[in-house]
Formats: sequence, structure tokens, C-alpha cells
Amino acid sequence: MVIEVKHAVVVKNTLYPIVKQVKTFTFDALPLQLGGRFGPVTLAYETWGTLNAAGDNVVLITHALTGDTHAHDAEHPHDTKVAWWNPLIGEGRFFDTSRYYVICSNILGGCYGSSGPSSLDLQTGWPYGMRFPVVTIRDMVDAQRKLVEHLGVRRIQMVAGGSIGGQQALEWAVSYPELVEKVIVVAATAALSAQAVAFSEVQRQAILSDPCWQQGNYQPGEGPDAGLAIARMLAMITYQSEESMELRFGRRDARQVGIASPGGYSDLGKRFDVEGYLYYQGNALVKRFDANSYLYISRAMDLYDVSEGHPSLEAALRRVRSKALFIGIRSDFLFPAVRVRWLAQQVSAVGGDATYVELDSPHGHDAFLKEWEQMNDALNVMKE
Amino acid sequence: MVIEVKHAVVVKNTLYPIVKQVKTFTFDALPLQLGGRFGPVTLAYETWGTLNAAGDNVVLITHALTGDTHAHDAEHPHDTKVAWWNPLIGEGRFFDTSRYYVICSNILGGCYGSSGPSSLDLQTGWPYGMRFPVVTIRDMVDAQRKLVEHLGVRRIQMVAGGSIGGQQALEWAVSYPELVEKVIVVAATAALSAQAVAFSEVQRQAILSDPCWQQGNYQPGEGPDAGLAIARMLAMITYQSEESMELRFGRRDARQVGIASPGGYSDLGKRFDVEGYLYYQGNALVKRFDANSYLYISRAMDLYDVSEGHPSLEAALRRVRSKALFIGIRSDFLFPAVRVRWLAQQVSAVGGDATYVELDSPHGHDAFLKEWEQMNDALNVMKE
Repeated sequence: MVIEVKHAVVVKNTLYPIVKQVKTFTFDALPLQLGGRFGPVTLAYETWGTLNAAGDNVVLITHALTGDTHAHDAEHPHDTKVAWWNPLIGEGRFFDTSRYYVICSNILGGCYGSSGPSSLDLQTGWPYGMRFPVVTIRDMVDAQRKLVEHLGVRRIQMVAGGSIGGQQALEWAVSYPELVEKVIVVAATAALSAQAVAFSEVQRQAILSDPCWQQGNYQPGEGPDAGLAIARMLAMITYQSEESMELRFGRRDARQVGIASPGGYSDLGKRFDVEGYLYYQGNALVKRFDANSYLYISRAMDLYDVSEGHPSLEAALRRVRSKALFIGIRSDFLFPAVRVRWLAQQVSAVGGDATYVELDSPHGHDAFLKEWEQMNDALNVMKE
Repeated sequence: MVIEVKHAVVVKNTLYPIVKQVKTFTFDALPLQLGGRFGPVTLAYETWGTLNAAGDNVVLITHALTGDTHAHDAEHPHDTKVAWWNPLIGEGRFFDTSRYYVICSNILGGCYGSSGPSSLDLQTGWPYGMRFPVVTIRDMVDAQRKLVEHLGVRRIQMVAGGSIGGQQALEWAVSYPELVEKVIVVAATAALSAQAVAFSEVQRQAILSDPCWQQGNYQPGEGPDAGLAIARMLAMITYQSEESMELRFGRRDARQVGIASPGGYSDLGKRFDVEGYLYYQGNALVKRFDANSYLYISRAMDLYDVSEGHPSLEAALRRVRSKALFIGIRSDFLFPAVRVRWLAQQVSAVGGDATYVELDSPHGHDAFLKEWEQMNDALNVMKE
């Protein structure tokens, strides 16, 4: 079963409506890394540029936890807020849409058009909720492979992504070495540290403990808003750094005190600016993201270990035939630069062609979504 | 009004019952830093050693967020688990109970015998709950001053504590310079960073969002257990370090899967050892600590700024006449060593007698409760 539906999603922001030309592709079933099969599987995706006759001028962009298909906005290519990697994609840019056919799909488990816990289970007529299977980064990549095959892709020039997107890029190079010419792994490591898993689990417990979560069977608009907001508040701390938060907020009083906190209780003594900021970020995610998707995708991040299913880490990395670029961020404490560098060294050690570049940024993990100039300089290493 | 009650609290642990000779002191009212007065105020405390006739052989030990009066256990002086600074206190030890009269009181706002939100409001016959006033580190210190006056103390040889206890020690040196000979500030800074406030606020929101919190009016045993457990889980991450968690847990599977998680939902895919550990720590705190106290004390930590109420930081620190020792911990990311060192430098810069010593420990913030040998070496600097 292959179904393709094309439709436009219109999202309003403050300046102008953003039109996302989101297409979907549905296939019958996917074998899962943790066992069993799941289907039907739908992937939502966007593309920019044109596929050549050989089907080999392809760039695959892989998104992070709460990301979506809209890595680039062709109508507003200079607006950094309307598409998450906008400044890196487009005519004449590193991911050059006049040369490449650029694809970005919403990950399996997501809530931006791809199959996820909020999708309707055709067998019951209800959303899957927690009946959705536990999916892994490898499953996400396997689903993407089905998509690119469907699109007529024969060879991928580059797979590139940051964070969970970086895990996907790495997994592409390990699972499908024959398909990937170059791989760009940004702010991702061979596997999460205990501390990062711990931060992740606190976030999930905030959602799971919210009575509105109802074992995952909440109605749209009646979900665990407080739990998801708290999860996002914590995540936002881990995406930044002590240095960047100090520069941005210090101990300043809140500029706005009208933003509702998850608990809704009045401030104890005062409200710090950083608190108002976190409430804002928590509320913003609640409006645009599904709590069950958050559980599944953050879990896939934790479970990811590139060596899983291979005899050893070395054996897994020895499969990589792509020219590989690893980009670490000096101030990232979720995916520390030292671990990204170590991964690059391991790939080199088993004979791979790996380069490591470090962004000298105070912005923590999020730097790959902020430091456009440094990102561009780092990516240009791959042109050599 | 001065009331003193002596009573013994028996706490059972796995090996033997621990007898805490907790005494209480009640006085009529305390003017509060943020305005108004609060009373009556009860402080629970323990003492070891004997006060001399001059009333000047005194050591005051100040405890951290969820700590209590039991800094030392005279009956089991070699057990590091039954009293939180046991190896540093006792005959022949740094805080030598054969020389000093050692006092440790439960902080104002606490739940181990001192006045706090779980105390009965005599005017209503109900616990204060959120009618308890927002108290500050200075208020805690002012209450301690009332206690030491009551005990006949004329001069304090040393005030020493870590974390919030370190904030109290610093505040003692600034508020009552004429009373304090030496001050030992461990893993505490002039004020929390934006990141540390942010971690704190996520913890409070987990409590405030738990429906069992009921605006703070929960019955004993029916409080926001899930919220408090989640708060503790996050706190435990911030008390350790990436390095120590990696050494201790790595990506190992849970050794025990029977420990209930706050949300109570089954594991997604698997349970990591670090997750089981965090559930255990969360559950353990729920059994021994009051959620409202957690809100008030963590807020006092955030609000603390040694310069508050003084013309400047320099003006505040210029008041210090004590010989001061600042102890930082290399791997502490909640109260980073670089900020502790900076504080020591500021005290020196305004003419104070300040020494900085850094513990070379991977154990993060908690090292002041674990690294006995290094702590002892650092403290011995004060003997010179």
C-alpha cells in the first residue's frame, strides 16, 4: 500500500502566514528494532529543489525532538524564525536547493503529520496513545529509507541533522553505508550519558504524573499541559548553558509577570526573568506538541546507542563509508563536545574519514539552531 | 515568650535505632527580611560538647535544603550514614566536641521540629501551609541568633555549612560580624545563577502542579508525593555531576525494576539503572520531607543574594571581620567552583581574610557530604 497525499498547511505567525507544502507518504508496515511490525506508516515531508534523472542529487535533513518538516521556507528564506535551518538551506547556500533535492521528513513517532501516538489507529478508530509501539532512532531511519526509495532516490549526497537529528544522520551512515556519500552529525554522540538520560526521565515523569495524561488517552486539547510544560522548562535549561542563561537573564526580575506558570500558583516572593521565560517556553510547546509524542521521541533519544545490534562499537562504526563531519558545541552539556569529538576519533580509528569541528559558542546545545555563521563555516569543511 | 522543650526522637534505620536528643526553643516573634513579623517561632536543635563559662567555645553548624539537626551522632560516631557531617564532628575531630560546644538547629521553614509550613498555626488550629510567610536565609540566621543568645553564647568560634548551609554561614559573617570568629562557607556563592534558579523552579512547579498539593492544604500522608519525588529526582541530578553519574550508572540496565516511579507507568522499552536510582531517591524524600517546606526552603536559596539590603556587594562583604574559608568543588555545577573562588576573591579585595580551597572531586555539589578526607584537609587550613 502506497498512498501519497499532497496538502498545504498554513501556520500563522505574527508577520505573515507561513505556507508549508507538506506531503505525506504511506506504506504498509515497518519491522521494528525492538521486535514486531508496525503499520500502516505515514511520513509527512517537505522537499525543495529538483531530483535529477540519476536520482543522486539528494540531501536529507533530519530534525530534532520537537522539530518538524519545515527546515526551510522558500517564500521567506531570510527569516530565521519561520523554518529551523532556514539560513543553511536555499539557493547558493550550503544545502543548495539549486543543486540538490532537499528532503526533510517528520520523524516516526512525531506529531507533525507522520505516524505517532496521536495518529488514528484504524483498527480502533481512536488515537494509538500508548498502544503505539516503542520506536527507535533506527526505526525512524528505516522509515525515512522507505520514503526516499519511494521518491526515486538512488544515492544521498548528504544526511545532516543536529541532536536527535544527528543520531539519525549517524544511524543512516551505519545502517545504509552504501547510500550515503557524506554525513553531518551535529551535537550528537554515540549514546546518551547517564546524566542526559536522567534529565530526560524527569521530563517524562512530569508528563506521566499529570492526571490529565490519563494513561495517554487524553482528548485533543485536554492533555497533560502542566506536565508537558514542566518537561519543556527542564529541556530548555539543558538546551542552553549556565553561561548563556547568565548572559541573558542573570538575576533580573521578570519583565512580564502575566505569563501563567504550569502550577498556576502565585510567585513566592518574586518572579525572576528566567522563570517567566521558562513558563513562556513551556506554554508555547503545549500549544504545538503532543505529550505522548514527547514521551516516545525522548525515549528513542535515550535508547539510542549506535553499537546496538552490532558486535561492538568498533564493528558498528567500521560500517561507515561516508565522509563524516562531526560538529560539537563547546558549551553543550547534554551532548558534550568531548563526547562528539571522541565519536569522531572512534570513526577515524577504525579507518573512517571523519572530521571534527567545534563551535565556540556559549549557547549550549541550541547553538546548532542559532550560530549560523559558525555552522556555515563548519559545514564548509565538507566542501573540501 | 521563651519555651524550651527537650525530647528524644527515635529514628529506626536498618542497623540500630538512632536516638536524636532534639531540643526546641520558642520565642515570640521575628521581624522578616521581606516585611512583617512572624511568630511564635520554634527552632529545633541539637548540641554536642559543653558550653564554657565565658560562652565563647561555640561552633554553629548550618544544614542544607533537606537536612536536619543531626549533624553528628555521639553514639555512632563512625557511621557516615546516620548523621550528615558525622566524620567531621566529635572528640579529636575538626569540630572537636571535647573543646567546642557544637550546635546545629533545623532551619526556619523546615520540617524537622522548627517552625515551617507544616507547623500548626495556633490561630487557626491548622498547619500554616502557604499562609507561612516567605522566609529568607537572613531570617533563618536571625532566628539562629535568637537561639544562640538563649543558650548563653557570647561568641561563636566557627559557623560552618555547605550549600544553603554555606549561604547561612556567609550571612552570619555579614549580619553579625562581631559574633563570628571564623566562617566556613562550603559550596555556596554570593547568589545563585540563572541556571540554578531555573532548576529550582522546575522542581517547585512539579510540586505546585500535583493536584494532591491542593494549594498547600494537604493532609499529612496525602500530599503531592509524585511532585515532590520528581523535584527530588531533578535535584539529585544537580547535586551530582556528569562524571560521577557516568562512573556510577553509565548506561547499565536497572538492577531493580520493582521501585515505583512517580508516574507509576510501565517502563518505555527498558529501565536504566540511573532511572531506578532516581525513583528510589524520590520515594525516599517523600517519606521524610514536607512538600511545602521544600517550596519555601528552595525559594530562600534562590532569593539569597548576600548584597541584598546593602548599598553594594562590596559594602556587604566589607562587613565581614571573620577569618573566612571558602571551599569549592571542581565538579559542582549548581554552585560552581569558579563562583565560590570569585566570592573569596571579592572578600579579599575589600580587605577581608579569605582563603579558597577547592575539592578535587567528581561527586559534584554533594562532595561536601562525601569527600571526608578532602573536607578535613580543607578545614585544617583554618587551624593555621
